[in-house]
Amino acid sequence: MNIILASTSTLFGGNYLEYLKEELIGLYKGIDEIIFIPFARPGGISHEDYTEKAKSFFETINIRVRGLHEFDDKTEALDLAKGFFTGGGNTFLLVKTLHEENLMSVLKKNIEAGKPYLGCSAGSNIGGQNMKTTNDMPIVYPPSFDCMGLVPFNINPHYLDPNPELKHNGETRETRIKEFLTQNEIKVVGLREGNWIRRIDNIITVEGSELTRIFEKGKEPYEIKSGSQI
Amino acid sequence: MNIILASTSTLFGGNYLEYLKEELIGLYKGIDEIIFIPFARPGGISHEDYTEKAKSFFETINIRVRGLHEFDDKTEALDLAKGFFTGGGNTFLLVKTLHEENLMSVLKKNIEAGKPYLGCSAGSNIGGQNMKTTNDMPIVYPPSFDCMGLVPFNINPHYLDPNPELKHNGETRETRIKEFLTQNEIKVVGLREGNWIRRIDNIITVEGSELTRIFEKGKEPYEIKSGSQI
Repeated sequence: MNIILASTSTLFGGNYLEYLKEELIGLYKGIDEIIFIPFARPGGISHEDYTEKAKSFFETINIRVRGLHEFDDKTEALDLAKGFFTGGGNTFLLVKTLHEENLMSVLKKNIEAGKPYLGCSAGSNIGGQNMKTTNDMPIVYPPSFDCMGLVPFNINPHYLDPNPELKHNGETRETRIKEFLTQNEIKVVGLREGNWIRRIDNIITVEGSELTRIFEKGKEPYEIKSGSQI
Repeated sequence: MNIILASTSTLFGGNYLEYLKEELIGLYKGIDEIIFIPFARPGGISHEDYTEKAKSFFETINIRVRGLHEFDDKTEALDLAKGFFTGGGNTFLLVKTLHEENLMSVLKKNIEAGKPYLGCSAGSNIGGQNMKTTNDMPIVYPPSFDCMGLVPFNINPHYLDPNPELKHNGETRETRIKEFLTQNEIKVVGLREGNWIRRIDNIITVEGSELTRIFEKGKEPYEIKSGSQI
């Protein structure tokens, strides 16, 4: 496999995908066209407008983009594609759409065959075992929470450390992930913004500017450095 | 109906249910025993420990508490109960348990017959039309997101205003609720901590120390004062 699963598409104060530009040139080396999967629809944006946003970035690295929604036969489109990018937004909407159109397993098969894949935020959640560690609001009911399992763990994108100044009794992110571990055995990678998972063949590493926080059942959470294998 | 759906059980720096004490004396007037529904299990706490926590508060207002998990026949327990309290925690776990044990509709029927009900956080979410505006992590997969519909809208508990100082690209609460409204027609009540919904017969009001933020499809969000009918 040849994949990047990133916490976010956009760093605070930065432009769309800018911080990943050099990485993406490497990921998609030799490829001149990819399929963009716009189903997570951040803020309810249309598939067309979301695809335009992806196109604007990818033309700066000479890659053409077509939106998956444009194809009548989406299974065939995935099978014929050279590479993929799934944008962020609402993970429930993304997973519901992929399952209802029977595309989750088709996308998985194509990525496992070696086609490059980039996921950001919700697009990274679907690379994990299931979507049970998304931060998103359950605005629609998917037929299943199962995802592609491109890595042997779950991802929590936009991982956020507790803010000791916040006078609010909602759960912290760490509390939520620990609740997940009371019900599940799966390891969770808390990806801070600026970080991503890189898988090349069977080697999986964490990359980026921040430490990465790992949660496992029965252990205290711990931090690993950029470049560490996982 | 005679219900309170509160944003939180505990104000920042306060003790469990303390800020609601006078309200709860009114809600449960004439009642000496209630059933506590501990299924949301905050932080993975056991049903027993969570019920003890509720007992400790309710003994200060001379109300006995029994946990619903203690009963072999839970449907009969709900039918024979004098009143109810559902504590906060994880809404997915709460809704999954209530649906799998066929208790959601039994609880609804008993509340609609006039038995007093208190919900906090996840326990308030289940008073809405569905759980699609919870803040919680989807750590388990419920057979349905449908809830009791004790009020003709959805609730977003622990409603949190955007923090302009946060250098983080995760969605704000307002963005998430607006995404909900791209997929659903249901009004959403953003309940800040310190606020609650009060329903007495057919009169529904918002109460508490803060303004309440209302989200409706096709409208700008707006604020209503404590005491307003909704």
